[in-house]
Amino acid sequence: MNAPDKLAQFINLTREPLPASRKRYVTGALGIKVPLREILQSNGEAVTVYDTSGPYTDPDAVIDVRQGLPTPRQRWIDDRGDTEAYVGRVPFALDDGAKHGETDTLAALRAQAAGLQRAPRRARIGANVSQMHYARQGIVTAEMEYVAIRENQKLEWMQQYQQDAAREKRLAGNSFGAAIPKVMTPEFVRDEVARGRAIIPANINHTELEPMAIGRNFLVKINANIGNSAVTSSIEEEVEKLVWAIRWGADTVMDLSTGKNIHTTRDWIVRNSPVPIGTVPIYQALEKVGGVAEDLTWEIFRDTLIEQAEQGVDYFTVHAGVRLPFIHLTANRVTGIVSRGGSILAKWCIAHHKENFIYTHFEEMCEIMKAYDVSYSLGDGLRPGSGADANDEAQFAELRTLGELTQVAWRHDVQVMIEGPGHVPMHMIQENMTEQLKHCHEAPFYTLGPLTTDIAPGYDHITSGIGAAMIGWYGTAMLCYVTPKEHLGLPDREDVKTGIITYKIAAHAADVAKGHPGARARDDALSRARFEFRWMDQFNLSLDPDTARNFHDETLPKDSSKVAHFCSMCGPKFCSMKITQEVREYAKTLGVTDEQALSEGMQSMSEEFKRKGAEIYIPISKA
Amino acid sequence: MNAPDKLAQFINLTREPLPASRKRYVTGALGIKVPLREILQSNGEAVTVYDTSGPYTDPDAVIDVRQGLPTPRQRWIDDRGDTEAYVGRVPFALDDGAKHGETDTLAALRAQAAGLQRAPRRARIGANVSQMHYARQGIVTAEMEYVAIRENQKLEWMQQYQQDAAREKRLAGNSFGAAIPKVMTPEFVRDEVARGRAIIPANINHTELEPMAIGRNFLVKINANIGNSAVTSSIEEEVEKLVWAIRWGADTVMDLSTGKNIHTTRDWIVRNSPVPIGTVPIYQALEKVGGVAEDLTWEIFRDTLIEQAEQGVDYFTVHAGVRLPFIHLTANRVTGIVSRGGSILAKWCIAHHKENFIYTHFEEMCEIMKAYDVSYSLGDGLRPGSGADANDEAQFAELRTLGELTQVAWRHDVQVMIEGPGHVPMHMIQENMTEQLKHCHEAPFYTLGPLTTDIAPGYDHITSGIGAAMIGWYGTAMLCYVTPKEHLGLPDREDVKTGIITYKIAAHAADVAKGHPGARARDDALSRARFEFRWMDQFNLSLDPDTARNFHDETLPKDSSKVAHFCSMCGPKFCSMKITQEVREYAKTLGVTDEQALSEGMQSMSEEFKRKGAEIYIPISKA
Repeated sequence: MNAPDKLAQFINLTREPLPASRKRYVTGALGIKVPLREILQSNGEAVTVYDTSGPYTDPDAVIDVRQGLPTPRQRWIDDRGDTEAYVGRVPFALDDGAKHGETDTLAALRAQAAGLQRAPRRARIGANVSQMHYARQGIVTAEMEYVAIRENQKLEWMQQYQQDAAREKRLAGNSFGAAIPKVMTPEFVRDEVARGRAIIPANINHTELEPMAIGRNFLVKINANIGNSAVTSSIEEEVEKLVWAIRWGADTVMDLSTGKNIHTTRDWIVRNSPVPIGTVPIYQALEKVGGVAEDLTWEIFRDTLIEQAEQGVDYFTVHAGVRLPFIHLTANRVTGIVSRGGSILAKWCIAHHKENFIYTHFEEMCEIMKAYDVSYSLGDGLRPGSGADANDEAQFAELRTLGELTQVAWRHDVQVMIEGPGHVPMHMIQENMTEQLKHCHEAPFYTLGPLTTDIAPGYDHITSGIGAAMIGWYGTAMLCYVTPKEHLGLPDREDVKTGIITYKIAAHAADVAKGHPGARARDDALSRARFEFRWMDQFNLSLDPDTARNFHDETLPKDSSKVAHFCSMCGPKFCSMKITQEVREYAKTLGVTDEQALSEGMQSMSEEFKRKGAEIYIPISKA
Repeated sequence: MNAPDKLAQFINLTREPLPASRKRYVTGALGIKVPLREILQSNGEAVTVYDTSGPYTDPDAVIDVRQGLPTPRQRWIDDRGDTEAYVGRVPFALDDGAKHGETDTLAALRAQAAGLQRAPRRARIGANVSQMHYARQGIVTAEMEYVAIRENQKLEWMQQYQQDAAREKRLAGNSFGAAIPKVMTPEFVRDEVARGRAIIPANINHTELEPMAIGRNFLVKINANIGNSAVTSSIEEEVEKLVWAIRWGADTVMDLSTGKNIHTTRDWIVRNSPVPIGTVPIYQALEKVGGVAEDLTWEIFRDTLIEQAEQGVDYFTVHAGVRLPFIHLTANRVTGIVSRGGSILAKWCIAHHKENFIYTHFEEMCEIMKAYDVSYSLGDGLRPGSGADANDEAQFAELRTLGELTQVAWRHDVQVMIEGPGHVPMHMIQENMTEQLKHCHEAPFYTLGPLTTDIAPGYDHITSGIGAAMIGWYGTAMLCYVTPKEHLGLPDREDVKTGIITYKIAAHAADVAKGHPGARARDDALSRARFEFRWMDQFNLSLDPDTARNFHDETLPKDSSKVAHFCSMCGPKFCSMKITQEVREYAKTLGVTDEQALSEGMQSMSEEFKRKGAEIYIPISKA
């Protein structure tokens, strides 16, 4: 199959709505339209869920990936009147890593992407266009209202609250001191952004964006990494992965391309993405200097930041905390420095015997960030790459530095989140969260896993899914996914899906454990469908309806099995749920007709039984 | 492929030792031979790991599944002189669920299993042959010595301890009050069994057994369920699953067959199993009464217990805690009763309006258990089947009853473990462990997951692997696996493997977090292999070398890639581990040659740097 065919196939595949699902839009006070996904059940009830999939799953949307998505944010940004269009930086062949003799191929590639070119905007002189700046001015932006509606959309919230209350607070959750409100309001969102406890990554040049928030008092989010490397992958594949990733629930996507054509790949990705896009600009900067870390300069890095900010990247991972005085702390580690960015900068620092230029130019970088509203993701370049190196001095020295830089960024009203590990045994996970809260002033934490053991390459979505669920519960705002290919190779389409579903599980388990209002509504709806043998509803309410249904089909493929009161696990005679229902039916024949009366009836039967003595047989006819 | 071909293929496949692995035997004082697996690395070092795979992975072992495994325990049992051979119960056609007209097929099937028939043994009159009884008499049995050597076999223990100590107790672990010794001795094993804090499931009729212990102060164990159902599966498939399951690390296997031929299936499984086999006898008893729960009687159940005890089943799950007075507590649940055994007994109780006959005959049952040394696995018939039902009164009322029954069993010196849930959100997991410890007097806890969310059918190995790792850390002694097919269908070969690897991850992550001595040795060895680009060692040290290697092969199939200093994730220019090594090499050129000096050298460089002022550029030539 050649590339265009492959692309065509992908567009066909991923534009289908998920089974039994339809797109609904909630309209806000500012005229904005916020999407949600409604899952219809066979009993007539509907469950609404947070929807990251963008216009792709809306059958009414007209999409051409060569032109990019519609730009709903353009009007909001124009209305604020504090930005200006300008003639952007002229792209170089080197932006795509092209060398002599390769420019023809590149020209062809760029021609394909011609429809994706936009004139960049930036803040007018003296203006600061960050969401944090607006929030601190007391302004509720359209982005903030969008976030409030989106987070708040679960109409089941109040009902769920009442049900939980009826269950005697058993299920109330433990949020470890988070301040989750019962109802999300635009004002709450504004306040969280103003105090730095949440960010809304939203570059003014990413007008295709459906805004979302990352913060401890919001739903736990997940990030999926895509991107080519020098060894494998193509542009079409990366766009395919983007659309595929958001279909299954990625809240943000990082483009970690390190090979050729990374500028043009990024045009494709940003213009077709309804979710925030993050990058690690040092990767591209290193390509520009031919892969020689020592040749990096602040000027080349700065040029790369502007290049990417103009394209609309929403957050930058910068390894500003990899300071020269910390590098020796890694010398006796089992796995040294495992962050790519961290190792590049460590090499630069050692070679020049000089402080990290990202650290020394941090304030200058803030000027760029606030001109486009790019958020910082302060990278943990010294994160542990094995359980043995977890929570060591190198890691925590860097974390404290990130806390200092957070305050620098906040002085510029620049949004910040903090990256975290990595590889951490279970008993050492909570310390990561408490240290981060202590030193980083409640800026959102964004962790990679952590992996709880090192012995399962091929299954590191699972070793890390365990740690991700736990640290999400403790307060991490966004979890960076890990796929089964971690440590072994580049993830393909199925790996991306497996990684995302695993991390949706971790994030949701964390929301439930934190007691996030309404988080349990979907669990309860699915459990009820399960108990009532509504098989199709059970599949449709799940994170991956296709897999659930396919697994069921393997042993019971007939349509009639989808309403059968058993499955192949136990067979018809042994189904506990069927028997329980028979028990309830049977009890009803004794004269009780509703759930409450059934409970009372069964209780009075038991009491009579106890009164008459537990060992005495009582014929049913006399009972 | 017909059935015999399939069986032949499976024997071929699973007799291969794992890559780079060889079987070693440690000889004990009592002349016993305890297996372990040694993984050889390319640098000449070896890592030894706990080995559940039995003789199957020993190239020198001669095995014919139609004759069963060798019987090393026979001599130990004979030597104790407290048992007698006798003419066992005569098997009925009904034991295999056969009805009129089906006996010919059954006869053919039984003829195949003729080589697996053994004359049963039982305790002489007045004797008690349970490991707990011996332990309480102060006797260290061969089984106990076997367990001590097996648990203790990691020769890396002491070395690891010293390394951890050097890392300033960062990695010391938190065992939540467990009493894990630095070195396992036979006397420690005896003491743990005597006080009921550990069990050694070891029916005297299971002489093929390689003994193992289940207890909070031993390595966390995992169980894999196999078994046919009325809908699908065959005997050959079940034996295949057994050998496959122990290859990947199942410490015990439960045969949950509920369809036809369950007696004969069990002969095949027990005779070919080096690991303890557990069953749920009520399933077979129900088959004997044609699936009509109301027709069950104590006599039929008792007959089934003896039938299975004679075959050599090592532990019985019995739902003795599903008491009549508790059933009404499930009436308002979202998912009622989800345990098969629990629902069968609830139906019986309600139909007869009578107390559960397993509860009322519990002491009589103890007489059977101690005559064969069958351990109790006290089933949680009222476990929650959804997060909404977690930790409710039905569940905890039953748990308290299991605690009472534990003390009854212990009066008979009968070994006991306690089953636990199920479906439990993360914040409610620890309460399960603390309540179990409180009410069940430290009898080992044996949980199914728990699943931390209900919304991911198709991925319940992961939703439950999260909960399993956590509850294992808190103190659960054995984790019952969950496969991707949970709630949807019967697991096939690949599902069994996925479930086991997931649970090996959970159990190992728990051991590491508890600070189990030496548990981290394998993590560290693998991390070192990873850092040194010893790809084959990394694969071979992993829980699933085949998958790790296959994933790597997908993008870099050449043999030369297995020694390459990069992988396809980042490509050659971006490999952080390669760059870190270059940093270390580079630092060495500055005049430092070993790790310690390197650290000091890098530190002095940083100090000089700080002294000279962080902003001043220092040319390398002058440094």
